[in-house]
This record gives sequence, structure tokens and C-alpha cells, in this order.
Amino acid sequence: MPKIELMRRVLASNDALVAAQRELLDRHGVLGINIMSGPGAGKTSLVERTAEALGRKYRMQVIEGDIQGDLDARRVTAKGVGCVQINTQGACHLDGLMLGPAIAGIDFAKLDLLLIENVGNLVCPAEFALPAHYNVTVISTPEGSDKPVKYPLMFSKSDALVINKLDLLPYVDFDLAALKKAVRKLRPGITFIEMSARTGAGVDKWVAWLEEKLLSRRKKRPATISRS
Amino acid sequence: MPKIELMRRVLASNDALVAAQRELLDRHGVLGINIMSGPGAGKTSLVERTAEALGRKYRMQVIEGDIQGDLDARRVTAKGVGCVQINTQGACHLDGLMLGPAIAGIDFAKLDLLLIENVGNLVCPAEFALPAHYNVTVISTPEGSDKPVKYPLMFSKSDALVINKLDLLPYVDFDLAALKKAVRKLRPGITFIEMSARTGAGVDKWVAWLEEKLLSRRKKRPATISRS
Repeated sequence: MPKIELMRRVLASNDALVAAQRELLDRHGVLGINIMSGPGAGKTSLVERTAEALGRKYRMQVIEGDIQGDLDARRVTAKGVGCVQINTQGACHLDGLMLGPAIAGIDFAKLDLLLIENVGNLVCPAEFALPAHYNVTVISTPEGSDKPVKYPLMFSKSDALVINKLDLLPYVDFDLAALKKAVRKLRPGITFIEMSARTGAGVDKWVAWLEEKLLSRRKKRPATISRS
Repeated sequence: MPKIELMRRVLASNDALVAAQRELLDRHGVLGINIMSGPGAGKTSLVERTAEALGRKYRMQVIEGDIQGDLDARRVTAKGVGCVQINTQGACHLDGLMLGPAIAGIDFAKLDLLLIENVGNLVCPAEFALPAHYNVTVISTPEGSDKPVKYPLMFSKSDALVINKLDLLPYVDFDLAALKKAVRKLRPGITFIEMSARTGAGVDKWVAWLEEKLLSRRKKRPATISRS
């Protein structure tokens, strides 16, 4: 199957590239987070809430991935956080090659947190590793609780699952217990964070999860050598 | 750019294959509809409502595309309509090659309507033509009205846009007028169908649109040659 062999080589070369990029983050003790979801689940709203909660406490940088347009980058910039917009021009995911120029332009010595918002898609982004330490997937209640069965790869690669738009729960058919059960089968030990980016309820749980990761990464930062 | 050249050849060979499949539908006066959307916008609910409204009046067949699982096929079969489930095993769209075995198994002489539910994805399915006469995209109000700007190809290739989950409009930030304006720029003359598959409101408009297409196709069906 030449198609599968080609795909295997593409993924292997992406893995090598993002490993080098991740090393750059590690060298400076920067935490990298890859945020994925289907279209309109609330990735940008999550980034906005993060900027509001942690933008003054930590040095944040956002990379926005979209097929076209800069709507999301403008939303993030309005929160006072640095943001680079990548337009994939049709591609359904971000990868190391696309991130290259954005990564090269960031001064990691002056950064604590890099949030990468992937293209809105529950399929392709899960196939391509990014220079992130954690994958966070956002699912929103109106999408339905059957998504893990239909898009297993995305959930199996997630370290945390943000269950967003919890304020809409009374108006939609969404079985929270069934969702969690299906996701745990794909990714045992995954962290669930129930919230509403719109009302703000539960955002504190997301912020606490992120801050715990930020603090533990800071400790891992290699000691700088003093030349004085 | 060898990557672009490869993609061009893949798409050209898909076009040739689905043209032959569409001819098979045309020979029997069968209407083919390709239903696309992001995950959880309501494609299967639309198919269910269609089966309820037209399942006894017209001879229907459904093809369900999912990466994994047969949840949707079971929902459709429960409505008394024939359904084939295709599992794409990771692929983010349906194409002519994947549809081949399902198409070969259908007796088109005994059919009026073929509904093809694509993989839930606002990106990849728009790139691959299917043996359908019309592309229908479903967008749901909780996804937000900024989707046409971010995923232009899908909207530019749609003949009708079903705006679903209209019952959630009071609880979400969704600018209906802005959405329509952005979509019309991408696809002038597109038909908008506002509805809620959940409450049933507006389903009659969808059924009317579909029935008009069914009747006009019936007229186009080539006269059968009587051998008596």
C-alpha cells in the first residue's frame, strides 16, 4: 500500500521536526498546549478565558491555526496577548512544517506558556503531533455525546477533555456519563474539565489544571549558567 | 510542488470515478444528495426526519460515512430505511473509491433517492466530489456564525445550507444575518433552510426543497423501452 507508506513517512518526518521544536520550549521551561476540537466547540473562547485569568501572571503566546481568515487572532489580540495567525490554505490540521516560521519568530526566553489552537476538525489534527506537552480536546454539549465512538483517535490522544457549553445542557440531548465512559475506554486517566466559556462557570477548574502544569514545568527548567 | 500535483491527480481520478457512478443514478432517475457538516451539527437527525417524511412516498437508500462505528446506520435503519455503513478507518471524508462497494450493492432500478451522509468534517469532504446531484451542508447555531469565513470551500460548494438547532438560538451567540451574508458571498443563489431537527420546526421547508428536486429528476428520467 504505497499510500500508507507515504503517510507513515510524512508522520515520521513531522515527529522529528516537532521533537526539535519541543526541545526549544523545554530549554526555556515553556509549557506547550495543543488545543483541538471540531468547528465551533469553543477553542478560541477557551484561549480568551485563559488570557483573562493568566495573561498577567504568566507570559503567554498564542498561535492560531485556521484555513483562512484572522478572526480568532483578532479576538485573542484584543485580550492583550501576543498571537500569530497561521492560514493553512486548505489543509485540515497544523503540523511542524506549518508552525516553523511562527516558532522561529518567538523569543522563548521571555515566555511561560505557548497555546496552539489547531484547525477546527475532530479528525486530521489528531494525526499530526505538535511541539506541545499536552493535547487538550474541547467537546461542546450540542455536538452530542456519541463523538468518542465516531472520532476515537482524537480522544485517545488527549490528556484533558474540556466539556464546554455546559450551560446548554438543559436544551440538548447529551449524556455526560456515557461520554465520560466512552472517553475513558480510549484514554484511561484523562482529566475531564466541565465548564462554560460563555458564562464562566467551571473556568477556574481549567485554569487550575493549566497552572499545575505550568508550575511543574517551571521546576523542570534547566538551571541557567551564570557567566559573571 | 509534487504534493500539489499528487493531490490534483487524486482529485481528477475521483472526479472520473464519481461521474460514472452518477451516470448510474441518472440512468434510473435517482436523486443523489451529499450531506456534509462538522461533527454533531445534525446530519443524521436530518436523515431521520427525511425518512419519517418521505420514506413511504419515495424509495430511499442511505449511505452512512463514519471513521468508525455504526451508531448512525442503526439510527437510520430504525426508521425503516435501507442503510449501508462505510467506515473510513481514519480518512476524513468519503470519496468514489470508498463508495464503490456500497454503490455496486444498490439496485438503482428500485430507488428514487440516495442520501449520502459524509464524515463529520467542515474541511476534507468539500474537496472530494461524490456521485450526488446536490451538496447540502448543515450548520448548527451553537457552532457560531463565523464558520463561512474559516471554512470557505465547504460553503462555496453547497447548493443548500440547512441552518439547524434553531431552537437553541436564544441561548447562543449566533448572527443569522451575518452568516447568510458571508455564505452568499461564497455561493450566490444558495438556498437557506432554517430548521430544528429536534423540535421539527422548519422540517417542512427541507422536505419541500428535497421533493422539488425529486420531482424534477423524475421528469428527466429517460423513457424506458418497452419490449412487449
